[in-house]
Amino acid sequence: MSTPKPVLVVAGIGAGGGTGAAAARAFAKEGYTIALIGRRVGETLLEELKNSGADATTFPVSSYEYASIQSAFENIRSQYPSPQYSIRAAVYNVAHGVWKPFLDVTPEDIKGVTQVNVEGAFAFAHEVITEFKKNEIDPTTGKRGVLIFTGATSSIRGNVTTSAFSAGKFALRALSQSLAKEFGKQNIHVAHAIIDGGISTPLSREYRKNPEWEQNEDVRLSPEAIASSYIHLAKQERSAWTWELDLRPAHEKW
Amino acid sequence: MSTPKPVLVVAGIGAGGGTGAAAARAFAKEGYTIALIGRRVGETLLEELKNSGADATTFPVSSYEYASIQSAFENIRSQYPSPQYSIRAAVYNVAHGVWKPFLDVTPEDIKGVTQVNVEGAFAFAHEVITEFKKNEIDPTTGKRGVLIFTGATSSIRGNVTTSAFSAGKFALRALSQSLAKEFGKQNIHVAHAIIDGGISTPLSREYRKNPEWEQNEDVRLSPEAIASSYIHLAKQERSAWTWELDLRPAHEKW
Amino acid sequence: MSTPKPVLVVAGIGAGGGTGAAAARAFAKEGYTIALIGRRVGETLLEELKNSGADATTFPVSSYEYASIQSAFENIRSQYPSPQYSIRAAVYNVAHGVWKPFLDVTPEDIKGVTQVNVEGAFAFAHEVITEFKKNEIDPTTGKRGVLIFTGATSSIRGNVTTSAFSAGKFALRALSQSLAKEFGKQNIHVAHAIIDGGISTPLSREYRKNPEWEQNEDVRLSPEAIASSYIHLAKQERSAWTWELDLRPAHEKW
Amino acid sequence: MSTPKPVLVVAGIGAGGGTGAAAARAFAKEGYTIALIGRRVGETLLEELKNSGADATTFPVSSYEYASIQSAFENIRSQYPSPQYSIRAAVYNVAHGVWKPFLDVTPEDIKGVTQVNVEGAFAFAHEVITEFKKNEIDPTTGKRGVLIFTGATSSIRGNVTTSAFSAGKFALRALSQSLAKEFGKQNIHVAHAIIDGGISTPLSREYRKNPEWEQNEDVRLSPEAIASSYIHLAKQERSAWTWELDLRPAHEKW
Repeated sequence: MSTPKPVLVVAGIGAGGGTGAAAARAFAKEGYTIALIGRRVGETLLEELKNSGADATTFPVSSYEYASIQSAFENIRSQYPSPQYSIRAAVYNVAHGVWKPFLDVTPEDIKGVTQVNVEGAFAFAHEVITEFKKNEIDPTTGKRGVLIFTGATSSIRGNVTTSAFSAGKFALRALSQSLAKEFGKQNIHVAHAIIDGGISTPLSREYRKNPEWEQNEDVRLSPEAIASSYIHLAKQERSAWTWELDLRPAHEKW
Repeated sequence: MSTPKPVLVVAGIGAGGGTGAAAARAFAKEGYTIALIGRRVGETLLEELKNSGADATTFPVSSYEYASIQSAFENIRSQYPSPQYSIRAAVYNVAHGVWKPFLDVTPEDIKGVTQVNVEGAFAFAHEVITEFKKNEIDPTTGKRGVLIFTGATSSIRGNVTTSAFSAGKFALRALSQSLAKEFGKQNIHVAHAIIDGGISTPLSREYRKNPEWEQNEDVRLSPEAIASSYIHLAKQERSAWTWELDLRPAHEKW
Repeated sequence: MSTPKPVLVVAGIGAGGGTGAAAARAFAKEGYTIALIGRRVGETLLEELKNSGADATTFPVSSYEYASIQSAFENIRSQYPSPQYSIRAAVYNVAHGVWKPFLDVTPEDIKGVTQVNVEGAFAFAHEVITEFKKNEIDPTTGKRGVLIFTGATSSIRGNVTTSAFSAGKFALRALSQSLAKEFGKQNIHVAHAIIDGGISTPLSREYRKNPEWEQNEDVRLSPEAIASSYIHLAKQERSAWTWELDLRPAHEKW
Repeated sequence: MSTPKPVLVVAGIGAGGGTGAAAARAFAKEGYTIALIGRRVGETLLEELKNSGADATTFPVSSYEYASIQSAFENIRSQYPSPQYSIRAAVYNVAHGVWKPFLDVTPEDIKGVTQVNVEGAFAFAHEVITEFKKNEIDPTTGKRGVLIFTGATSSIRGNVTTSAFSAGKFALRALSQSLAKEFGKQNIHVAHAIIDGGISTPLSREYRKNPEWEQNEDVRLSPEAIASSYIHLAKQERSAWTWELDLRPAHEKW
């Protein structure tokens, strides 16, 4: 029997120019089949992945409600069934940006933040870990699978305009730590990356309109550089796994 | 014009034998009028407070949904109107205990945890801070008001059976830190207490059925001792406020 | 047999206008006999304490070398012998301020920082805990004694000009946490206060020459307010002890 | 003019079977010339490196006193002079293990711990950063050099038998964070690895005499796996550098 093809599931691909997309490209280069979950359909990214020779499919979701995520995974299992495929890596890169004075935070903001960082994240992790448990342990890395969460400075520090955003990011970090402790014993690797600084994405470039910032890799993060550390996490061997690392530009003040 | 009578609003009074109730008693001794918010109506506590000479009222809520909390505060404002009264202190002591292996965590568990730690906590803080902003600064403490959140070990550490519980508690801690930073400038004091260990409450005593544990104050927390630190926080003068402290029994292993 | 008179030993009294001195005054008011350890002889403070009716003595040290501290404690034991007296509280408030770019830090700076934060702190704690172990447990607080370390923002965060200062302060915090864990079981309470902000002392006032800062208690710490939290720590009952709390002015940006 | 050959300086090579030695081997494979600093002369390691084709030299030191480290670097500069060579990477892997009840910690233990973690570490960093500042920025990584400190669980948590060990390790972590913040702006990358668990080294294997532990990579760290993350740190591109990561075996309880 041949080895199942490894599948990466990445949630949160935005417009296709950020960390989720970069992770998809990087894992594709490592031979993974790519399942893209997102609220926006990333057709450009999908085509790009396919043109580069990768097997990839999008699984749009209308929201990060529990049932939406479950349904996306059912579709993934249909599209990439066992034993030909097995989900071996997952990146949860979904964010819901709310930065405003506390008294302006609305019930809708709170709902948005909790849906993405708690409800959706728990659903995603539930599906991913259930799949990982079915896998054989990879002899090189000692893993049944790797699950990476994208965090932020707000994962470890609340601040004046981040009551809602950091509440969500703190919760996500708690989940990732609990999972790392619970499932390490089962050779499932869970990691959390604290992204500390602005990431150069189509959205942030348009927002900033600052070519100097855009071109100066010392002052902002590249999605590709983040993805490169995600690949490192995926390859870490069983005797030395990382739960948490921070990533920031060389010149970042912190 | 006479000074308004100070009101403490405490949410999460359980059966009347835990931290919320002890806080109510302690603030009542300091001359506060007590507004009790809870899902269970604490009539025994209410009578006890009244018998001790305190002015106190219960404001039952059916859940910690945003609207329920808003409605409870409308009733509080009716019962204790300005300018005779002013809300000067608040304790958010609500918990939703979920300790189970991650794969057993249900969507309902997640909803319960987020409602109490995110939705309800944001709603409570919104109401409380809105009220505090109307207050004069107390000349002794330099405060318009003090808002205390009850945290737990799970506020700073995820663990194998705490994915849901710690997700909620991390979120609550993020909120408290963001508020402390945003509203300190306005002389509003926000604090977070990390309760690290078992608290002796009617519920925990019944659950443990361990008289030795119950009688040995070296190994478990007393609600009264916790409340005593809450009073200290309320009295701290403006030049030296605490955002966070931990509280644990003398013999606790940590 | 009568109860021994409680003694506070405080190290680091500077010119008598800072945290150490305020702690001495506050514990004196609580009925403690005061033993003052310092490199500078605080005669003004000593007289002030005596004039207020306190029993107090200075124990000058030439440095915070291990042997100097041991010798100071021998003198304290001579002056305040058992069973008439017992050391019941101790505050280690010694600092060695080095704030400079890393490449300017000299071997002497490093020696200064380690002597105060490691060598002297270990010696002080060794003497104090040895004395505490001889004490009966106080029935109210459940303590044989309380040992409080004064920390700073630099206890938890290294920064661009704090390589030496924060190395020392981190080390001191590690010591305090290790002691809290090891000796809690023996009813010895060890605590660590993170002072986050500028303290108004004769030295800082002279340095800043800023009457506005001096008079505005919202923007700087008062030694008295810090001492008031130290007293709270000393009084905390056995079921709810704090290892660590932060203290900062209401308006501090953090 | 040709590019200078990159040199790795690693301090703390023990008997040649631990993390320092593994780092030396891993950087040698990446084309670095290796300068080995240690109290014990690692002739076996030296020969092994040379046999594998690497350029390597040992620089024994009698202690980690400031002057010893300075002198070792003078010798390194002699042996590997500019412009043929340039120090591009450094690993500070020196430990002084003291695990004992606090009251058994001696002044000599304290001296040992501070010499290695403060005096020696500051001296090492001073020399390394002075050298790095002379380097051109590497166009791929955006670095003038990378300096990695080996930390431990005791870097972030004091415990009952770690008062001395954790005081040293906390101090080292403070140094690394201060350096990362101060020199990131100058494209010097400083990182800190928290090694959480037992490492399989000749010493630990002899101490444990537990072949099962030795053979089970799920329960103990391999120096090679740690070194592999050190190489990743050295290769991280300027837009996404890590200051701190943890490393532990898959099955580690934490």
